[in-house]
Amino acid sequence: MEDVQNQTDHRNIPIDKVGVKDIRHPITVLDRANGVQKTVASINMYVNLPHHYKGTHMSRFIEVLSDYSDNINLRNLKDILEAMKKRLNAHSAHIEVDFPYFIKKTAPVSGARSLLEYNIAYRGSINGSGLDLVVEVKVPVTTLCPCSQMISDQGAHNQRGVVNVAVRFKEFIWIEDIIRLVEESASCEVFSLLKRQDEKYVTEKAYGNPMFVEDVVREVSGKLDKVPEIIWFTVESENFESIHNHSAYAYVEKDKRK
Amino acid sequence: MEDVQNQTDHRNIPIDKVGVKDIRHPITVLDRANGVQKTVASINMYVNLPHHYKGTHMSRFIEVLSDYSDNINLRNLKDILEAMKKRLNAHSAHIEVDFPYFIKKTAPVSGARSLLEYNIAYRGSINGSGLDLVVEVKVPVTTLCPCSQMISDQGAHNQRGVVNVAVRFKEFIWIEDIIRLVEESASCEVFSLLKRQDEKYVTEKAYGNPMFVEDVVREVSGKLDKVPEIIWFTVESENFESIHNHSAYAYVEKDKRK
Amino acid sequence: MEDVQNQTDHRNIPIDKVGVKDIRHPITVLDRANGVQKTVASINMYVNLPHHYKGTHMSRFIEVLSDYSDNINLRNLKDILEAMKKRLNAHSAHIEVDFPYFIKKTAPVSGARSLLEYNIAYRGSINGSGLDLVVEVKVPVTTLCPCSQMISDQGAHNQRGVVNVAVRFKEFIWIEDIIRLVEESASCEVFSLLKRQDEKYVTEKAYGNPMFVEDVVREVSGKLDKVPEIIWFTVESENFESIHNHSAYAYVEKDKRK
Amino acid sequence: MEDVQNQTDHRNIPIDKVGVKDIRHPITVLDRANGVQKTVASINMYVNLPHHYKGTHMSRFIEVLSDYSDNINLRNLKDILEAMKKRLNAHSAHIEVDFPYFIKKTAPVSGARSLLEYNIAYRGSINGSGLDLVVEVKVPVTTLCPCSQMISDQGAHNQRGVVNVAVRFKEFIWIEDIIRLVEESASCEVFSLLKRQDEKYVTEKAYGNPMFVEDVVREVSGKLDKVPEIIWFTVESENFESIHNHSAYAYVEKDKRK
Repeated sequence: MEDVQNQTDHRNIPIDKVGVKDIRHPITVLDRANGVQKTVASINMYVNLPHHYKGTHMSRFIEVLSDYSDNINLRNLKDILEAMKKRLNAHSAHIEVDFPYFIKKTAPVSGARSLLEYNIAYRGSINGSGLDLVVEVKVPVTTLCPCSQMISDQGAHNQRGVVNVAVRFKEFIWIEDIIRLVEESASCEVFSLLKRQDEKYVTEKAYGNPMFVEDVVREVSGKLDKVPEIIWFTVESENFESIHNHSAYAYVEKDKRK
Repeated sequence: MEDVQNQTDHRNIPIDKVGVKDIRHPITVLDRANGVQKTVASINMYVNLPHHYKGTHMSRFIEVLSDYSDNINLRNLKDILEAMKKRLNAHSAHIEVDFPYFIKKTAPVSGARSLLEYNIAYRGSINGSGLDLVVEVKVPVTTLCPCSQMISDQGAHNQRGVVNVAVRFKEFIWIEDIIRLVEESASCEVFSLLKRQDEKYVTEKAYGNPMFVEDVVREVSGKLDKVPEIIWFTVESENFESIHNHSAYAYVEKDKRK
Repeated sequence: MEDVQNQTDHRNIPIDKVGVKDIRHPITVLDRANGVQKTVASINMYVNLPHHYKGTHMSRFIEVLSDYSDNINLRNLKDILEAMKKRLNAHSAHIEVDFPYFIKKTAPVSGARSLLEYNIAYRGSINGSGLDLVVEVKVPVTTLCPCSQMISDQGAHNQRGVVNVAVRFKEFIWIEDIIRLVEESASCEVFSLLKRQDEKYVTEKAYGNPMFVEDVVREVSGKLDKVPEIIWFTVESENFESIHNHSAYAYVEKDKRK
Repeated sequence: MEDVQNQTDHRNIPIDKVGVKDIRHPITVLDRANGVQKTVASINMYVNLPHHYKGTHMSRFIEVLSDYSDNINLRNLKDILEAMKKRLNAHSAHIEVDFPYFIKKTAPVSGARSLLEYNIAYRGSINGSGLDLVVEVKVPVTTLCPCSQMISDQGAHNQRGVVNVAVRFKEFIWIEDIIRLVEESASCEVFSLLKRQDEKYVTEKAYGNPMFVEDVVREVSGKLDKVPEIIWFTVESENFESIHNHSAYAYVEKDKRK
């Protein structure tokens, strides 16, 4: 049976990335509190294709994914990328893994416990010049508007926001630590389960801690700057404004290596 | 060239709805302030298929849509449905038209003007027993939690919510009237453009007007009950809670004909 | 601390459904091949609210969810609904649980094994007149157009489609059985991993088995009609047409109790 | 009334981008065939914020948008960015405008006419080092697999795909020209309305013109390379595989200035 993909291509155009996109797969990731956590990921896997080959072999990506899905984490992402390069005879490989991750939180007054979802992404690339790993963490928070609070006789508009932090690092870091750092940088953190005494607490805490999206990115940014394992980061903050039908947004990038 | 769709089917299974889904098309709708408004819709069009036909003729739906896209509204939806029935030789026809609709709003203190988006849907069906029309209107609002306000020393959590009203009616009604009715039934309405004096106004108005999702559906429901043109309605209210990562939700249905 | 929700409401409007929406939570479901499967769900939970109460107690839904998330399935959905009714002092309760579910499939020629995702939903309600359970299964398939095949000298347009089956049943049924029934009713089933010999097989199988969306709903419908455990069903088939930028769609509903 | 945003910030952290996100607004864009086209856009607008200011003035973005929404195009995007810089006292400004755009197409045999939707994005930035404009065009196409065609006795799997082209240019180019270039580079183009003779034509054309995602990006890439107005481009091709539940994907970037 002919191998069409292996035919020679004469257009002389190398392809930067080719592969499979939006595969859904159960995966097991590292969990600081419980050892491991089972979740469900959306995954993209690509390699480069030299100009003289007509096509790549898409089924081999799925084979690599099957080999590693029981353990995908920041520590072995390099192994997966190396396996992709080898299996596909490629010079570079890329993987993107997006998944929900749950942490058990304790309500501030009642101590009631519940799980909260965070959206995590691993983005890894390997090529001749080495390995590049990025981890992204999306953290839901409460923000309360300082302007609204200052100018109003009573109350202040507040809303859910989401803070998206992406980091490059020189030593392993726990996503739990990034999440904690972000939750301590907003007007208040959010919970799935709050009893009445907790609701009083978070309402008053947010009111006493007003922050613009600008304040949130600055707070998070200032703290990430002091984490020695992190060598590069971006921080995005988006507020789903309660007084508008659009979002307020702020973004900061910092490369400590420069 | 053979007409496969017109072949006889022997499985003896009639099909309730068959047609085209998720067609995107520019349309022109009625606008009370400006006569007409051009927008872009997502459209589904279906007819029934008797058990003895193998298939319907999908291209004819697009032809009907082309004929009517310059004027789609609650007044001529029956004509479109009749055209579908005739063109497809069917006994029943269904159409669903979802589109963004913009209304110019005036900020409460500064008078600054800006457009706000509402998501509208027309749902029409016709069959042997007559015509059935439903219009749906999604209205973004601000809600402020009565419990949080009552128990907290200062402030109260608030958030963006969306109220979804669906109505059946015996006489034509303007979607502008439904939108207004909803906006007057929340803690405060939302705007795209608010200057500082407006922000003070909406913050204080919401604080003085705390409402649960339950209160919102009851307020809207009570008012819809008094609109004589409306003979049936549902009201959904969803709050994108600022202290949680999930929504609070309430729903009421009422058929005045019963 | 005052219980605002327990206050008396004088508007005399009962609320059909009130609760929490779009909670994300890890759950464990039944898996015929492996006993159980861990996955991540989006969940809605509602109860009714009598006219004289101002509000419901949202945190109690999360408490019930926490109690049952280690085992949510068609057999114990009634227990969860009863727990909701009791915990919320309600007359009716509703739960909607949507989750991805994975089944290991074997490629038709090579025997290569890989996981495929199916989207499942449980919808349960309980009230004075009893329990109502619906299970929904979304199955991706290949469809190949009979008209295109018949009129063309070579080839035939084909595409990915999705078949959505909802059933009510009088005895427990496995979702694996519904999935299998659907996969045998399309031009061909889909796989995550196909080697070259498999690709030849599925291409030729689909070409030899052309089906409109109308054919797919009729095939599935005819088979569901013969499953004695099933007492009511709907079948939707949607083709993401390869020659258009919109979908072809068909829908059938049957209540065997009538 | 105090201007909280104008207060001095002492954290010494400048913000790269701050502004409004996901505003929905009707806009009027250039249309080669008809002069102008009215559509509905999702818009993001950001400026930089020097380290010594606490916050930006979000309402001013909406004011600029209102001024320009009657005419947003590649020729005046610089004016909008300059207006943002001036109105917000900023050194840099960014705008992202995403909208559906419709072109009337003629079926290949019957000559039947219908509108097809393309998703367009303008991305503009201005700062000290000048103006940067990117236009993105998403074009739906049909692709037919060369491997499946070669190895199968009859038929070949095919599917809808989408090609996303982003370009930087030194002279104005029409998006209509980019769309045409892409539609001529796939197995076949797609249409909203095809009569039977057209369906035969597109089926046979795709069968005679098999292309991998790799072939599509190479074809488009080779042609963009020869368009003198274009100085940089990326091409993404994604196939919604009819035999899988995931996509095949390829990506090429080229900077002609290097």
